Amino acid sequence: MHFSSDNWAGAHPSIADALTHHAAGFAAAYGASDLDKKVEAKFNALFERDVAVFFVGTGTAANSLALSTFNRPGGVSFCHREAHMLEDECGAPEFFSHGARLAPVDGIDGKINPELLENEIRRFPPNVVHAGQPMAVSITQATEIGTVYKAAEVDDIAAICRKHDLPLHMDGARFANALIALELSPADMTWRRGVDILSFGATKNGCWCAEALVVFDPDKARDLPFLRKRSAQLFSKTRFISAQLDAYFENDLWLQLASQANAMSDLLQDAIRQSSNARLAWKSDANEVFAVMTREKYAALLQQGAQFYEWKKPHSVGDILEDNEIIVRMVTGFATTPEHVSAFADLLG
Amino acid sequence: MHFSSDNWAGAHPSIADALTHHAAGFAAAYGASDLDKKVEAKFNALFERDVAVFFVGTGTAANSLALSTFNRPGGVSFCHREAHMLEDECGAPEFFSHGARLAPVDGIDGKINPELLENEIRRFPPNVVHAGQPMAVSITQATEIGTVYKAAEVDDIAAICRKHDLPLHMDGARFANALIALELSPADMTWRRGVDILSFGATKNGCWCAEALVVFDPDKARDLPFLRKRSAQLFSKTRFISAQLDAYFENDLWLQLASQANAMSDLLQDAIRQSSNARLAWKSDANEVFAVMTREKYAALLQQGAQFYEWKKPHSVGDILEDNEIIVRMVTGFATTPEHVSAFADLLG
Amino acid sequence: MHFSSDNWAGAHPSIADALTHHAAGFAAAYGASDLDKKVEAKFNALFERDVAVFFVGTGTAANSLALSTFNRPGGVSFCHREAHMLEDECGAPEFFSHGARLAPVDGIDGKINPELLENEIRRFPPNVVHAGQPMAVSITQATEIGTVYKAAEVDDIAAICRKHDLPLHMDGARFANALIALELSPADMTWRRGVDILSFGATKNGCWCAEALVVFDPDKARDLPFLRKRSAQLFSKTRFISAQLDAYFENDLWLQLASQANAMSDLLQDAIRQSSNARLAWKSDANEVFAVMTREKYAALLQQGAQFYEWKKPHSVGDILEDNEIIVRMVTGFATTPEHVSAFADLLG
Amino acid sequence: MHFSSDNWAGAHPSIADALTHHAAGFAAAYGASDLDKKVEAKFNALFERDVAVFFVGTGTAANSLALSTFNRPGGVSFCHREAHMLEDECGAPEFFSHGARLAPVDGIDGKINPELLENEIRRFPPNVVHAGQPMAVSITQATEIGTVYKAAEVDDIAAICRKHDLPLHMDGARFANALIALELSPADMTWRRGVDILSFGATKNGCWCAEALVVFDPDKARDLPFLRKRSAQLFSKTRFISAQLDAYFENDLWLQLASQANAMSDLLQDAIRQSSNARLAWKSDANEVFAVMTREKYAALLQQGAQFYEWKKPHSVGDILEDNEIIVRMVTGFATTPEHVSAFADLLG
Repeated sequence: MHFSSDNWAGAHPSIADALTHHAAGFAAAYGASDLDKKVEAKFNALFERDVAVFFVGTGTAANSLALSTFNRPGGVSFCHREAHMLEDECGAPEFFSHGARLAPVDGIDGKINPELLENEIRRFPPNVVHAGQPMAVSITQATEIGTVYKAAEVDDIAAICRKHDLPLHMDGARFANALIALELSPADMTWRRGVDILSFGATKNGCWCAEALVVFDPDKARDLPFLRKRSAQLFSKTRFISAQLDAYFENDLWLQLASQANAMSDLLQDAIRQSSNARLAWKSDANEVFAVMTREKYAALLQQGAQFYEWKKPHSVGDILEDNEIIVRMVTGFATTPEHVSAFADLLG
Repeated sequence: MHFSSDNWAGAHPSIADALTHHAAGFAAAYGASDLDKKVEAKFNALFERDVAVFFVGTGTAANSLALSTFNRPGGVSFCHREAHMLEDECGAPEFFSHGARLAPVDGIDGKINPELLENEIRRFPPNVVHAGQPMAVSITQATEIGTVYKAAEVDDIAAICRKHDLPLHMDGARFANALIALELSPADMTWRRGVDILSFGATKNGCWCAEALVVFDPDKARDLPFLRKRSAQLFSKTRFISAQLDAYFENDLWLQLASQANAMSDLLQDAIRQSSNARLAWKSDANEVFAVMTREKYAALLQQGAQFYEWKKPHSVGDILEDNEIIVRMVTGFATTPEHVSAFADLLG
Repeated sequence: MHFSSDNWAGAHPSIADALTHHAAGFAAAYGASDLDKKVEAKFNALFERDVAVFFVGTGTAANSLALSTFNRPGGVSFCHREAHMLEDECGAPEFFSHGARLAPVDGIDGKINPELLENEIRRFPPNVVHAGQPMAVSITQATEIGTVYKAAEVDDIAAICRKHDLPLHMDGARFANALIALELSPADMTWRRGVDILSFGATKNGCWCAEALVVFDPDKARDLPFLRKRSAQLFSKTRFISAQLDAYFENDLWLQLASQANAMSDLLQDAIRQSSNARLAWKSDANEVFAVMTREKYAALLQQGAQFYEWKKPHSVGDILEDNEIIVRMVTGFATTPEHVSAFADLLG
Repeated sequence: MHFSSDNWAGAHPSIADALTHHAAGFAAAYGASDLDKKVEAKFNALFERDVAVFFVGTGTAANSLALSTFNRPGGVSFCHREAHMLEDECGAPEFFSHGARLAPVDGIDGKINPELLENEIRRFPPNVVHAGQPMAVSITQATEIGTVYKAAEVDDIAAICRKHDLPLHMDGARFANALIALELSPADMTWRRGVDILSFGATKNGCWCAEALVVFDPDKARDLPFLRKRSAQLFSKTRFISAQLDAYFENDLWLQLASQANAMSDLLQDAIRQSSNARLAWKSDANEVFAVMTREKYAALLQQGAQFYEWKKPHSVGDILEDNEIIVRMVTGFATTPEHVSAFADLLG
């Protein structure tokens, strides 16, 4: 009953096998091996265009490098108030971009409200040095609270970016889960809608450690090789990431894993809907489930061996708690089984 | 005949097995798992004291975080002119420490000359703001040119550090190779000689991706958890590093691997000594071998399938080249076999 | 009728005279002259203790250096949502502190609400690296909207700082105006209440360019000489700042100038209270006056030669505007005369 | 007998008068006043083209902002080993450019040797991320040791910059002295020779505090307003700089002042040539004079009231000292008189 996070699982057996398979032999370091090139080509195929890909070690690295690509002095990037880069990255985006600021934008369901985004951008008129200058917009797909931006919602944000000539970043730590939820192609969920740069996460979905920064217009990636190296994210044996991603993409393994995670989330949501001891806090589209229960019930479940966390009530959710109630988060993943869910459902009652 | 670098090999089979073994199941993320704790305890045992250990993804990260631990405005760190952090890290140390400078110090055999170090430090008198202020000293063990600091040589540097109240960092990207060469214990090669902080490298010696920053006085590591996270080096599935290191230390595997690498280096040096087409540029103590040959011979060997690089003549080496001669570097590693060496020796003639 | 800002005036004649007086002759550069030492001693006398004083060129420099003194990786400093450092310094505080973040705290009347401050600090539990770590608290005295923190209000903030072991910074760009409003001594408005570091502004109150960073415990200022020099704020002819401050303090000139500014503000507030075309937006304690008027009236006054700006409605003020009404700001200064005020009052009607 | 530095003098009477003259009245802040615009126009006239001008408070600020204008990750800027930005700015250039490095280039007479510059740039091949990437070249005119780059010498450096597509910065802390020495127009000493950006110093030559960054192609200055504000160098009462520069340029005052300084330097050099107790260390072209004397003679002169400093023997000067001899530096300035020089000459004997 491990629902603490999708990073509590290890790696999918095929990923582990790939690491074993490629452990033997010699190959060029620092991303110049045939395997590295092969995986880069897979990214091109996946996104139906030539892209620039940069493997990195963490989602925080991908997000922070993404912003630093568009760095401006006095720069301000706009993201949702509950975005991972704002809440959970210890100032890495600001560090990587030399102090450029993250400005929180509100919006229900964990998604940026386009009108509020527009208002916030307008607070930084061009050429007014005191306030600073807009630099980028970042959306998280799927969001931190398990929802996903619908295609039209991405369009709305992208239109504002175009209007203000701002690049659009997508934090895809749970990219595959969003893709499954939306039934879109990778291209249709990203550059065809106006996304300029993507943090492509694979770690949560079955890899040990495999994240990639994808720049859809390779011309805009001129500085990234240096930015990555300077931030100590260029691995000598880059093949250890390529090997994981090679297996990850093989036979659409990645989509199967995300489907499994999302399906388990659906199952879990059903169980909660049927429970008399909890209710859904809101509907999740991807692999994070949020429920409301009493503090006592939560304590009892932990006691009985369930593993999951209390979650701070998001700003973007209204007044849904009664006295003594809390919100809890349960995350499903590639390694979650129906048995995990039903064992939890039994305990929940 | 792969002598390009010790990072062209993949991972040792035991390391790969460990990753497979730990791929299944769930465990706490971000370094809180039992396996993470177990490996931390192994570091304590290894160094015969309680140390603070921080796993990171690259040697550049370890070095750069090490310096940033002692960061000062206008800070100047002293390292050998040919140090990796100065020559090959794209300004990462300066980036991590917000612009603190690296000052090159000369010295023969790739090692800092203590007298020149003393002179260089004196260029920054306390309280003279214009010049800046000394911040740290860094030595590389083994050095970039395959030599190692003898115990007494580390003592000399450490004495200068103590005199000026400067922390001493050791870049141990090839720590195990130096250890084998010196026949010292880890404690005797580090903190017992005055080393304060160590970049402990395991990637070059058989891991896929496993580096650690070791702080010998844990009280001085207060900021490091935040520094590491802020630099995007805290891995969610930290177990993927712990698993590698667990196997690395098991039954002294790491020492066997470094012994193998060093032995192959000795073999290769013998072969070069006996060759009429090349000569040793200088004696190597660890797993990098440097030879002098003509440009034509180098081209011929490449043609015949040998893989190794021309090496820029180090500042710290005198006038050893005749017309048309170059220096080449050959690196042995855990995966180098006597067959590799003898095949190369045959070609060399 | 110049009410645009207190930095539209030039310098008080005594300040200008001092610059002329000290223009002749030679003296040690970089803060080592007798005049520099004399003015430093005046700061000691003023604050009734030995302080460390650092002259700088702008209020932004003083604020940003103040925060950088307490810099921490992943650091978060707390200030009012409308604080100058958050709204008007183009990210300088973040730049100087290498990406440390400013967290806005709400509160009515432009002042931090202690309870909200406590809540905000609690969002960063010690040792949780993801969120970051608290670093400092900053209050502005007088505030950006013309109010001042009463002594007890400073006490409340300082108590929270002590509880969380956080340094307290005071942005005193309008320090003298607050002092006059509160009828407190400099010591009683600062370190005796728990303020650790002060941006002491003199430019707005009659100098050309004279700001100082005052550290009440000189032991905590060890790095500041280097921080200041590194940020290009150490002036070679530091006497040009000392000369201004020498005259500024002479015969309590500074207090007279602030009294004049505050008195003109009172006069102006009276005029607005008596007007049928405007009303006070809120009561000002210092030298900034905020009024509500229609957009038409504002346009008409500008047309007639009055100089002042529309002001964005602060978050910390409730719903005080009717349709078509705006808030305007009028700033009085040392150079404002009763004639300026009455001319404006006549126009206002 | 004040020869310690050209920043030991205060301000020229005309400069002081200008500050008094403009002290009265009100004008727009932050560089928007008529006076600010008037002085900007004077820069255009001076350089015979439209330039972008940014007033700042220190030469260190001008130099550091200049480099940050061309900032690149892993960036390396090339300057002479004895350049002020490398020796005397406490890491400000690295801080402003987020850790970009300064690479020292040798050359006799304090001037970059073009061949060595070419060699040094070649150490950073395009697209090799390990080494970093070239970013800018900076020359100092007049140099730190009183020499000036001849027109053809600037041409040589500029040609290398063009070849490698690198911007050329000129540190003109003593711009006027170099101009007088070379008898060139400002345009001919800068952009017509390939200089892209200039630190224009006026402080040492008679102002209290007036430095400007001049960008010859205004299109390249897009980020500079934000860079300047973010580094706390945008003064609210910018008129205090404009007023100084207005008087500085009026009736070619600045050229008269530099002529005076250079003439006094010539007089002083003559005196030293005729002395039996000292000799010229090398010929100075501008307003810094370097002499060789015994340590005893130096001590005696200090005792008798002469003020000047011992100077560390520059790398770029050969073996010119005999036992017990030292190099001393004497700086003349706008306030130096023939009486100062002859009094010194009398003491020197």
